[in-house]
Amino acid sequence: MSARITPPDRARLGAGVHVAPVKIRFAHCDPAGIVYFARWFDMINGVIEDFFGAALGLDYHALIRDRRLGLGYGQAHADYLKPGMMGDVVDFAVLVERIGGASLGLMVPGYRGDEPVIAARLVIVTTDLNAHEAIRLPDDLRAALAAYEERCR
Amino acid sequence: MSARITPPDRARLGAGVHVAPVKIRFAHCDPAGIVYFARWFDMINGVIEDFFGAALGLDYHALIRDRRLGLGYGQAHADYLKPGMMGDVVDFAVLVERIGGASLGLMVPGYRGDEPVIAARLVIVTTDLNAHEAIRLPDDLRAALAAYEERCR
Amino acid sequence: MSARITPPDRARLGAGVHVAPVKIRFAHCDPAGIVYFARWFDMINGVIEDFFGAALGLDYHALIRDRRLGLGYGQAHADYLKPGMMGDVVDFAVLVERIGGASLGLMVPGYRGDEPVIAARLVIVTTDLNAHEAIRLPDDLRAALAAYEERCR
Amino acid sequence: MSARITPPDRARLGAGVHVAPVKIRFAHCDPAGIVYFARWFDMINGVIEDFFGAALGLDYHALIRDRRLGLGYGQAHADYLKPGMMGDVVDFAVLVERIGGASLGLMVPGYRGDEPVIAARLVIVTTDLNAHEAIRLPDDLRAALAAYEERCR
Repeated sequence: MSARITPPDRARLGAGVHVAPVKIRFAHCDPAGIVYFARWFDMINGVIEDFFGAALGLDYHALIRDRRLGLGYGQAHADYLKPGMMGDVVDFAVLVERIGGASLGLMVPGYRGDEPVIAARLVIVTTDLNAHEAIRLPDDLRAALAAYEERCR
Repeated sequence: MSARITPPDRARLGAGVHVAPVKIRFAHCDPAGIVYFARWFDMINGVIEDFFGAALGLDYHALIRDRRLGLGYGQAHADYLKPGMMGDVVDFAVLVERIGGASLGLMVPGYRGDEPVIAARLVIVTTDLNAHEAIRLPDDLRAALAAYEERCR
Repeated sequence: MSARITPPDRARLGAGVHVAPVKIRFAHCDPAGIVYFARWFDMINGVIEDFFGAALGLDYHALIRDRRLGLGYGQAHADYLKPGMMGDVVDFAVLVERIGGASLGLMVPGYRGDEPVIAARLVIVTTDLNAHEAIRLPDDLRAALAAYEERCR
Repeated sequence: MSARITPPDRARLGAGVHVAPVKIRFAHCDPAGIVYFARWFDMINGVIEDFFGAALGLDYHALIRDRRLGLGYGQAHADYLKPGMMGDVVDFAVLVERIGGASLGLMVPGYRGDEPVIAARLVIVTTDLNAHEAIRLPDDLRAALAAYEERCR
C-alpha cells in the first residue's frame, strides 16, 4: 500500500485555491451503486483542464492542439475515503505540490460539503507531442503555476 | 509525489504468478495517441476479475452478484513508465502485497516484452453490499490468497 | 444503414426546449483527435439526467435510487454530422418524439453555434429495478412529459 | 424511434462469418447492474478492430497509425434486446451490409448462446487523418471486404 494522501481540511484551503464542483452522473457509477474507481480520474482530468484556463490563464486544449504540448501523467494516485453516490456534487480543489523541471505535481482533494471523499495526487509530465520526448515546463506555464501557488498561501 | 512503485524484473516473477495479456484498443487511447491514464485502470480491473477466477478459484462476478460481496477500491496508484500504444499487448502480473483484515493489497505491473510500462498498486476493501459496511475478508478468499502467495514464491 | 435522423434547425427550436451546453473534454477524444463515437452517448446521458430535473421537475437519480425506476435504453442511434473537437461547446436540445406505454422516445440534436454536429435518438424503457420487468411510465413522469411537449411547441 | 434492426438467427449465420466472444466486465455495468448502453459500443469497436485483422487481413491499428486512414463512424445505432449481465459472454458477429464509395456499413448482432441480446449497425467513414477529409475506401480494404462478403454467403 502506498502512503496515504492526507487532504487538507476544507476550511483551511487558501482563498485563492481553485475549487470546482462536479456532479456525479449515472454513467460514473458501477453495479455497487457508487462511483467506479477509474471514473474519478475522468472527473479530476476535467477539473484540471478547467484549472488551466481559470487559474493559470492557459487554455488546456490550445496547449495540446496548437502548441503540441503533451500534458500526460507520470503518476496517478487516489485514496478513496467515502463512496461517491449518483447526484452528489463533489467540490475538487487543485493544489500545486511541486513545480519540477519537466513535471508538475498536483494534489486534488474532493469534498462533499466539508467531508473529504477522495484525495488524489497527480504528476503531469510535459512532452513535445511532435518529437515524442520530454521537454522542460514552458516558461509561461511555470510562471503561471508559481503565481497560482503564491495566491493559494 | 507519492513514492514510486518499483515493479519486479519480469524474468524474476515466480512461476506461479498469474500473468494476463491485454491488447491495447483504439478506445483506450487519447488525442496524444497513447493510452489515456484512467483507462489503464479499466484494463487492470479486468485483469483482477480474471485473476479471481483463474488463480483464486472464485468467480468475481458471482462474489458480487450472488454473495453481495463488495470488492471496491480503497486506493489506486499507478506509475506510468512508458506510453502504451494502440495494438500493443501488455502482460499484467498480479502480486499479493498484503492480506489484511478487511482489505487486500495488490501490485500489478504491466510489461511489453520484458520492459515494464506501468506499475500499479491497488487496495481492495471488502464490504457487505446490502449493509453497505466494511466486512472481514471471507475465509475462502483469505485462504485462496494465502495459497496463491505461496505458489508465487 | 438506418434512416438518417434530421435535426431541426436550431433557430426553429421552440422557446420552451431544454438546451444544455456540454464542453468537450480531452477524455472524450480519441487518437484521431475527435470525440470518440461512444463518448457522445455519455454526454447525452448527462444531458438527459439534467433534463429530468430541470424540465420535468423529477430528480433522475432519486427516480432510480429511491423509487427504483429503471430508465435504461431500448434504442440508441446517432448520426455523426461533424467531428467534435476538444474545447468545443456543444449545445444539446432535448425533444420528445413519443410518449409510449412503457417507453419514451427522445431526439437529442447537438449544435456548435447553429451548426448541427450530431443528431441522436434514444428510446428509454421504464422498468422496475427490483422486479426486473418493464412497467408503465409512472403518471407523474407521463404528465411532466406531456406538459414539456406542450411548452416546446 | 428508428426502425428496429432485425438480427439474423444465429443458426443461420454463414460459416465464414467472423464471430468473436466478449466477456462482460464489472466496468461495463451501471448501477442497474446491467451493461451501460454506451459501453456496448466500446465492446463492438474492439470486435471491429479484431475483425479487420482476422477477417480482412488488415491491421486496424496500422491503418490508422501508419497509413493515417481514419475509420471514424458516421452512424451508430443499437437496439438493446436483452440486458447484458456481468460475467456473460456475448458472441458478436460482423456482417457487411454495404460497401460504399467512402463508407462501409456493418451490422453487428450479439448473441448469448442463441439468443440475440443486441443488434447494432455502424457506418464507418474513411478519411485522410492528415488532410482531415473524406477519401474513397482504399482498394485493398474494398477487395478484402468483397472477399469477406463472399465467404459469408
